[in-house]
Amino acid sequence: MSNLVSSSCEACRIDAPTVSNHEASELIKEIEGWHLIDDGVKKLKKEFSFTNYPDSVGFSSKVAEMAEQENHHPQIILEWGKVTVIWWSHKINGLHKNDFICAAKTNNISKN
Amino acid sequence: MSNLVSSSCEACRIDAPTVSNHEASELIKEIEGWHLIDDGVKKLKKEFSFTNYPDSVGFSSKVAEMAEQENHHPQIILEWGKVTVIWWSHKINGLHKNDFICAAKTNNISKN
Repeated sequence: MSNLVSSSCEACRIDAPTVSNHEASELIKEIEGWHLIDDGVKKLKKEFSFTNYPDSVGFSSKVAEMAEQENHHPQIILEWGKVTVIWWSHKINGLHKNDFICAAKTNNISKN
Repeated sequence: MSNLVSSSCEACRIDAPTVSNHEASELIKEIEGWHLIDDGVKKLKKEFSFTNYPDSVGFSSKVAEMAEQENHHPQIILEWGKVTVIWWSHKINGLHKNDFICAAKTNNISKN
C-alpha cells in the first residue's frame, strides 16, 4: 500500500507551501494513472472508465464521501462511461501533498 | 408546472432532428436559469449553488438518478459550493427536445 493512501490530509493554510517540481515528480510515481495538468493552476487529473452509469455514479459518490471526510474537495466530472477527478488546493492555488494523498485514496476507491 | 417537466425523453435516434434556433429560443423560456452554450456543439448549461458539500452531492445523485431513468445522461460537474449540469444529445451532436425536458426536471429536483 502506498504511504500516501494511509496518510490523512492536514489542514491546508493559505500560506502553506506548494509542492516543488521535484517533489511532484517523485510523488506522482506513487499514484498510478494521474497526470499533472496546468491550466494556470497546477492540478492532478485522472479519467476513470466505466461500462455502466450506476457504477460511475457509485464511484463519484464514494470519492465525494472521502473528500468530505478529508475536508478536501476535488472537481468530479460525471458523464456516461467515465468520471474525471481533478485535485488541487484552492487556498494555495496549486498542489499540496494533500492532493497526492487524495489522488492515492481515489485510486484505492476505484479498486474496491 | 412546465409541460417540459411532465414529459419524458423519447428515444433519440442518430437521424433525429436537432431543435431549430427558433424552437430553442422558445423552449429556453420554460427552463429558468439555463443558458445556451456552444463549444462546437450546442448545449444547455446551468450552475446550481450550495452552501455545504453534502447538499451538492445529494443534488448530483438525484440528477444522476433521473438521468438513468430517462436514459439520457448529462455532464455533472461537482465541486465545493456548486454543481454545474450540462445537457446535450451525443447522438445528434446538438440539442434535442429531450435536453430541455431534462433541464426542466433538473430545476424541479433543485426545488425539492
